[in-house]
Amino acid sequence: MPVIPPPAKVGDTLDDILTPALIIDLDAFEANLDRLRARCETFGVRLRAHAKTHKSADIGLQQMSRGGACGVCCQKVSEAEAMVAGGVPDVLVSNQVIGAARIARLVALAGRARVIVCVDDAGNVDELAEAAAAAGVTLECLVEIDTGMGRCGVRPGAEGVALAQRVAGHPSLRFSGLQAYDGRAQHVYDFDKRRARIEGVVAATRDTVAALKSAGLDCAIVGGAGTGTYAFEASSGVYNELQCGSYVFMDVDYGRVQEADGAGLSEFAQSLFVLSTVMSVAVPGTAVCDAGLKALSTDSGPPVVFGREDLEVSGVSDEHTILLDPGDSLSLGQRVKLVPGHCDPTCNLHDWYVGVRDGRVETVWPVSARGCVV
Amino acid sequence: MPVIPPPAKVGDTLDDILTPALIIDLDAFEANLDRLRARCETFGVRLRAHAKTHKSADIGLQQMSRGGACGVCCQKVSEAEAMVAGGVPDVLVSNQVIGAARIARLVALAGRARVIVCVDDAGNVDELAEAAAAAGVTLECLVEIDTGMGRCGVRPGAEGVALAQRVAGHPSLRFSGLQAYDGRAQHVYDFDKRRARIEGVVAATRDTVAALKSAGLDCAIVGGAGTGTYAFEASSGVYNELQCGSYVFMDVDYGRVQEADGAGLSEFAQSLFVLSTVMSVAVPGTAVCDAGLKALSTDSGPPVVFGREDLEVSGVSDEHTILLDPGDSLSLGQRVKLVPGHCDPTCNLHDWYVGVRDGRVETVWPVSARGCVV
Repeated sequence: MPVIPPPAKVGDTLDDILTPALIIDLDAFEANLDRLRARCETFGVRLRAHAKTHKSADIGLQQMSRGGACGVCCQKVSEAEAMVAGGVPDVLVSNQVIGAARIARLVALAGRARVIVCVDDAGNVDELAEAAAAAGVTLECLVEIDTGMGRCGVRPGAEGVALAQRVAGHPSLRFSGLQAYDGRAQHVYDFDKRRARIEGVVAATRDTVAALKSAGLDCAIVGGAGTGTYAFEASSGVYNELQCGSYVFMDVDYGRVQEADGAGLSEFAQSLFVLSTVMSVAVPGTAVCDAGLKALSTDSGPPVVFGREDLEVSGVSDEHTILLDPGDSLSLGQRVKLVPGHCDPTCNLHDWYVGVRDGRVETVWPVSARGCVV
Repeated sequence: MPVIPPPAKVGDTLDDILTPALIIDLDAFEANLDRLRARCETFGVRLRAHAKTHKSADIGLQQMSRGGACGVCCQKVSEAEAMVAGGVPDVLVSNQVIGAARIARLVALAGRARVIVCVDDAGNVDELAEAAAAAGVTLECLVEIDTGMGRCGVRPGAEGVALAQRVAGHPSLRFSGLQAYDGRAQHVYDFDKRRARIEGVVAATRDTVAALKSAGLDCAIVGGAGTGTYAFEASSGVYNELQCGSYVFMDVDYGRVQEADGAGLSEFAQSLFVLSTVMSVAVPGTAVCDAGLKALSTDSGPPVVFGREDLEVSGVSDEHTILLDPGDSLSLGQRVKLVPGHCDPTCNLHDWYVGVRDGRVETVWPVSARGCVV
């Protein structure tokens, strides 16, 4: 495998950076950290930032130090391993971990850091318990409930209680609470519809917390929420831990999510860009950039050119983004900042973040869990 | 950066492979190599297989040995470097190379292998010439013409001739012919429409070849074509080098491309899969797999489950694919083979290919140019 060298070094200008490259506007990034920290303090809830967005231990540590997070979330065991290896001491795998090989790695990790995992299957609970017991560790578990997303999780209420009791019955496991996340709600653009959807999520979660309490089981963690909905969960009186991820970077699709007044979400700034070079202007009215599907993910739509509403993206292919530039304003070699449609899978395409302030490269961070899908 | 370990070792069964993983059915893969080799021999044209599909020097070398290719195409300088480092001796960068840093790398590579590059700008030609002269190498150039894709390339005819003359005027460059590729035509599903589109491409290319000949410039290479259209270019009497890439693997979108009788393309077999594990069956009627947007690209639509037309993909998120399984036929831990919507960007998400035959892992190849976007 190639070791991809960093596309820039500290002190470089934007024009020195090899493109396409993932760049972070550090002022905007830090403002986002500060903003969500302040909001969580106001609401009186913890933040457990989702590292699946950035896959970077450096950023996870900044979310904990400057950003006030109690730890991070990961989606995969290998992602969690990369975070712990990079110094993050507290990781929730907000997902199910299936199969002996992965469970062995999870349990080994629990010997080196605080590790929490989600469960939605009784047989899986028993396997986790056996592996934890064999390794001499106690593994914390959140019971995931399906509050409407229809992906993972047992039914709220009695099914949740039954699985929690199964967890609590194993000496090598600890029942630590509930995972109740509605990913689809994050991208419901209309404010009232988004709020209504989360009201249902909160009601199901509240009922399950109460049913657990009746069964003698307390939830140390009631976790969920994302960048699009967190204020609803945070003010519910039910949730105590938020799992926002995209807030550090933002993307085109989150820009479509509306506030109560119909305006786009504006409390977090766009801090992430794919820096790209114009590599062809041979076709009149068109400028072609050197970043395509292998440098940005289009699952939530194409990128836009930051600060250039006059330029329209007409196509994205493997290694090209085609811009309609009727005035032929762009010249060969010129740099543009593309805002990705969806930040999470875009970051996973790159090996390095280039942190920029005042037009200069201030830092270069590895995407330390890039490709960690297991 | 993490070094991602291989997800399997030689001799493993499918159930031993850590998922999600990119697996190759070696029988189907080799049949695809044999098929296109035979077709090119029949047509009397060379194959220069496109390595952007697989980004693997191992596969590039097999395309040359078993598959009869004269060399490979790459889209990026760093991709070409990885191919040459892996032993591929003959590489066409079927794209423009812009900027001093990249040009320096291209010219250095031309000192270690046969390197050809595409041009569509006079200033860029002069820069390439200067760098090649300084390095004491001769760089081969293809003039790219825009035959209707509207991406890169000068206009066919006089513009192409003028740029070719500019190339030929530099002692450090060699004019080697034309690049005339219509990527969009590959995915025009209807046979007659696809053929009609390529008829236009061929006509523009034929005219440009003739105009060049009148100007005293011969085209050693007239290159282009892809998996969806190659028979048209190959039988045109104009093209002598085909650049098919996807034929080694195939994908869902190429399955939609129709033959003359309206049936799907069938001469190449599906050889590439994302092996995935069912990680949640908690929601009735639903099975969730552990491969999402970070293991397969959905730019050309979602994946399908190979051999299971009864299962419908209802959603793909960062790390999950949700299958509608009304009969609850899938069980936790079960493996499924997902056919990616688009093979090229899917391969770039992975670090390893696991080659399988008769249910056993026979080989593991690195995705040696994974992440090489510069």
